[in-house]
Amino acid sequence: MTETQRPTIRLMPKAKPQAIRHGFPWVYANEVVTDRRTRALAPGSLAVLEDAERRPMGLVAVNPESKIIARMLDRNAEAEIGVDWFRARIGAALAHRERLYDQPFYRLVHAEADGLPGVVIDRFGEAAVIQPNAAWADLLLEPLVEALVAETGVQTVVKNASGRARGLEGLDDADAVLRGGVEGPVPVQMNGATYMADLTGGQKTGLYFDQRENHGWMARLAPGSRVLDVFSHVGGFALAALAGGAAEAMGVDGSRAALDLAQAGAEASGFGDRFTTRQGDAFATLEALGSEGAQFDVVICDPPAFAPSKNARDAGLRAYERIARLSAPLVAPGGYLALCSCSHAADLTAFRNASARGIGRAGRRGPIVHTGAAGPDHPVLPQLAETGYLKMVVFRL
Amino acid sequence: MTETQRPTIRLMPKAKPQAIRHGFPWVYANEVVTDRRTRALAPGSLAVLEDAERRPMGLVAVNPESKIIARMLDRNAEAEIGVDWFRARIGAALAHRERLYDQPFYRLVHAEADGLPGVVIDRFGEAAVIQPNAAWADLLLEPLVEALVAETGVQTVVKNASGRARGLEGLDDADAVLRGGVEGPVPVQMNGATYMADLTGGQKTGLYFDQRENHGWMARLAPGSRVLDVFSHVGGFALAALAGGAAEAMGVDGSRAALDLAQAGAEASGFGDRFTTRQGDAFATLEALGSEGAQFDVVICDPPAFAPSKNARDAGLRAYERIARLSAPLVAPGGYLALCSCSHAADLTAFRNASARGIGRAGRRGPIVHTGAAGPDHPVLPQLAETGYLKMVVFRL
Repeated sequence: MTETQRPTIRLMPKAKPQAIRHGFPWVYANEVVTDRRTRALAPGSLAVLEDAERRPMGLVAVNPESKIIARMLDRNAEAEIGVDWFRARIGAALAHRERLYDQPFYRLVHAEADGLPGVVIDRFGEAAVIQPNAAWADLLLEPLVEALVAETGVQTVVKNASGRARGLEGLDDADAVLRGGVEGPVPVQMNGATYMADLTGGQKTGLYFDQRENHGWMARLAPGSRVLDVFSHVGGFALAALAGGAAEAMGVDGSRAALDLAQAGAEASGFGDRFTTRQGDAFATLEALGSEGAQFDVVICDPPAFAPSKNARDAGLRAYERIARLSAPLVAPGGYLALCSCSHAADLTAFRNASARGIGRAGRRGPIVHTGAAGPDHPVLPQLAETGYLKMVVFRL
Repeated sequence: MTETQRPTIRLMPKAKPQAIRHGFPWVYANEVVTDRRTRALAPGSLAVLEDAERRPMGLVAVNPESKIIARMLDRNAEAEIGVDWFRARIGAALAHRERLYDQPFYRLVHAEADGLPGVVIDRFGEAAVIQPNAAWADLLLEPLVEALVAETGVQTVVKNASGRARGLEGLDDADAVLRGGVEGPVPVQMNGATYMADLTGGQKTGLYFDQRENHGWMARLAPGSRVLDVFSHVGGFALAALAGGAAEAMGVDGSRAALDLAQAGAEASGFGDRFTTRQGDAFATLEALGSEGAQFDVVICDPPAFAPSKNARDAGLRAYERIARLSAPLVAPGGYLALCSCSHAADLTAFRNASARGIGRAGRRGPIVHTGAAGPDHPVLPQLAETGYLKMVVFRL
């Protein structure tokens, strides 16, 4: 038995400790004995999780205000959570990314799967953007950042507090520059192109690293092609396609600021003359391009999450179907249509079916040649693998 | 209405024609009016499929002896199935592969998804191996081969009749060399390595093209690594890893002939000195390596289908779990374990869970960093996409 001063929380007899012993990282509020002492714990407190027989199972971060009342930090209930502990976790995460990527642009820490529940860190060369999306990490942000700087040598650290999860954890949404400083967009090398990432004013953390493998995959189809990249953001698919040899690419997005970054990336990559942009609502632009009789060899649609929650699932699937119906006519015969979804609530089967339905309604048809997901810098725990949110389905029409 | 001399088969009123109209390629025996005339059709006969109101839906190949009584060949019920028709299908399939691959080594035709139901053609440079796994294709083999030669220029065509489906179709299992000739193994360039494919005596059609993307993916983890490739066959993962910079690789297989081809490939690739082989039962060899305390940075297990049918599902999943339990201890800390399944009957979720269970039983644990499937030269119809048989799950331990 451990002789710790730490508070304890205890599983109820009906709770099944096996899943947690086998690596499930969360404890739900209805699984623990919620006495007054537990309810009084401050969000982000560390505690020892015990099974119903009071045997310690590990060190957890507690948040009595969250449905996920505890997140496993360490199987060793006596672990000290300080700079050294963070360095060990970040170092292990870094070794994996350094094996995969030539250059320091990647998601460095992907929360639970990298042993840091609720913590997301994206690396942009000498800068890092950290999202402490759980109360414990917000409380321990200083040693976490110290460890991050020590392991990676980054000079700039930005805190991004826009994550939806922070609200559920009772956290504020105040962004901050914690180390160094950021002046203007940061150039990021990926898939042979230079992207411009806005680390302080951008969507998400400035760039969608999760789509990098899919950008690269689609670039294989690019040589000599006319490419349309809808919901282009900073040019994720378009710039990779141009680097892969596309004859020309057009980026469509509602945000002028995003398209300006895409154009700047294309210029910095040396193919600004092969890239055009079109600002506007994606649905309206797809319809307009259809009316104009525009044809492309490769069309990619990478919309925001249309089905972010269970309630939004049916409406979201209808929106995905509409995207497919409007984009399919723009694909030249024998060309390719890549449709993406980052909706947790629309699983791969439902998304694929909605996409195929939309393509069929457009009078087109074709096999699926590839299904992609988030890249290997976005690892998942086997116990949470069903939740893989990002999917790309590539049809040949 | 079409004025064809062809026999017709008709959907029953209860059958739902929508799925077929939307691209589902099969008609089941219990969906059609099976009068004496239909039952008398010779296996492989061409017929016009009609809906319950006698409207033609397309041209189908009929096999009254099969549960899949008809396979859609063409939405045009009057299509002439001859050399020109085959050339159009093969030409479209070829354009897709030529866009993806620098060199002519790939699955050229993947059955239904390439518009040639039951027909599989693998290309090995100037040679092709054809599997006519449906009765209609067996009957029309000569124009099919003529079209194949005309479109691709291959000089050698081998018929491989070992496909399990041929039995269900009532077809023989006689292999044959239909054009040219084969002398010894054919060198195949993939993922930077040279593989040796035995087109006449080998498993499947001499090489597993479906794993090529996964070989390449794992090679990204290879630089400087010690790699173990279990169920190595002709060295699929091992040779790609060595080409990717692995320090050393060991291939394990029960077949001496396969390992000799792997060794010959390693020599031809210029890294014969970094490749070793170990012949023996995979389970026994994994246990032996465990007893010896052997450690590898990357371990890959790519077994034959342990769960080829629904009846074999539970036993198959136990075998996958055992593979995971025996291989996990061989992975050095922070290393990678890639587990593959080509079982139709074990879906991704079941296979992933069995694998994670086996790893847990070995006292190890870790996130999934990648999930792979068959490559883009193995397209799938959206309506059959659930059946994606090949999966690779990569754990970091």
